[in-house]
Amino acid sequence: MFRQPNKAYLTSGSGTGKTEIEAFDNALLDAGIGNLNLIKVSSIFPKNCRFVEDHSISPGSVVPVVYSRKIDSDKGNLISSSVCVARSPDGIGVVCESSAKECEKESRNKSIKKAKRMLKSRGLKLKDLNLASDSIESEEVSCTVSALLLW
Amino acid sequence: MFRQPNKAYLTSGSGTGKTEIEAFDNALLDAGIGNLNLIKVSSIFPKNCRFVEDHSISPGSVVPVVYSRKIDSDKGNLISSSVCVARSPDGIGVVCESSAKECEKESRNKSIKKAKRMLKSRGLKLKDLNLASDSIESEEVSCTVSALLLW
Amino acid sequence: MFRQPNKAYLTSGSGTGKTEIEAFDNALLDAGIGNLNLIKVSSIFPKNCRFVEDHSISPGSVVPVVYSRKIDSDKGNLISSSVCVARSPDGIGVVCESSAKECEKESRNKSIKKAKRMLKSRGLKLKDLNLASDSIESEEVSCTVSALLLW
Repeated sequence: MFRQPNKAYLTSGSGTGKTEIEAFDNALLDAGIGNLNLIKVSSIFPKNCRFVEDHSISPGSVVPVVYSRKIDSDKGNLISSSVCVARSPDGIGVVCESSAKECEKESRNKSIKKAKRMLKSRGLKLKDLNLASDSIESEEVSCTVSALLLW
Repeated sequence: MFRQPNKAYLTSGSGTGKTEIEAFDNALLDAGIGNLNLIKVSSIFPKNCRFVEDHSISPGSVVPVVYSRKIDSDKGNLISSSVCVARSPDGIGVVCESSAKECEKESRNKSIKKAKRMLKSRGLKLKDLNLASDSIESEEVSCTVSALLLW
Repeated sequence: MFRQPNKAYLTSGSGTGKTEIEAFDNALLDAGIGNLNLIKVSSIFPKNCRFVEDHSISPGSVVPVVYSRKIDSDKGNLISSSVCVARSPDGIGVVCESSAKECEKESRNKSIKKAKRMLKSRGLKLKDLNLASDSIESEEVSCTVSALLLW
């Protein structure tokens, strides 16, 4: 019933708000996925799935997503998030997230490291890496989110 | 693959039990959605989606849901839950939840307030509000749940 | 849009890793479901759904799952997980999980007990029980998982 997704969209964004929910919502809007009904899935990139530059999914559609997010409310903290897709030569891949009170580069490196280990657990070689990441210096409540849509 | 839902069902219920899981299950049964396989989604009300008075979804079906719940085990506490759908004139809307150790009216007001802010973040005007809410004075372990099914 | 699943697959597995995520990923691989995009659903076994001995779902497919897991990083602890399907005479059933720092038999008994109570809440009689369970004595970070796929 639930077939294999064949399209993937990597994105990231950040936002602020008066509450955590509002900051998260604004980060999703900034990432261009705030008008979808996201369902969290675990982290496999299907074979024969291709990256698209943009999505034109109708608002309110139910769409599987892998995402990482970080929320912070202490003024001046730098927070970042990253999602990494590591694909093997035959097309299948793994998806790993990282987010923390750290700089964007560090989040990126951690998500890459995790993804490489997950490929290794499967006896797969690395063909390529695709990433999305973002960071924000928190003011009021701030949120950064990196996401992979699969549909 | 995951199309836009075009039917929505607002409901709420409460229940008690010997454990949290049992109280939650009984609250879902009270709300008339205890025999479905619910998947949590984030909170957008699709355009061209209409409210139905009742659902006749086959038991065991996998159905997207937005819900709020509150569980409490201290005798005499009043707990409540609410879900609010705020729609804009063109039909798209947002869905917000609230639940707490508080009266039903307060949960309703909070979910309405959140929903209005989410509409505003999207530059949308408010056309109408639809709510479900419930409350229970806890005895043994008690649970109240408010939910929006989308399918 | 989300129809009733008609196939079910019970499985379990355990694994270790340097991090919780890696241990969980290895447990899912051990259970034969590590290459799927799992979405957590609540716990109803549909009527007219049948158990299959193995699954041949394409890697990366989005599949509903009910699972229990336990992660531990203290050397020498025994951890276990169990999933129980309790069906009524007319085919519909409930799915209950249990996992803890305990032996496999105890996890199995707890998941059975929960499932029987959930059937009773629905006024249903018990026809049969189907279980999956596993345990592991933790070394580095260890994880055990028991799961029911529904599709």
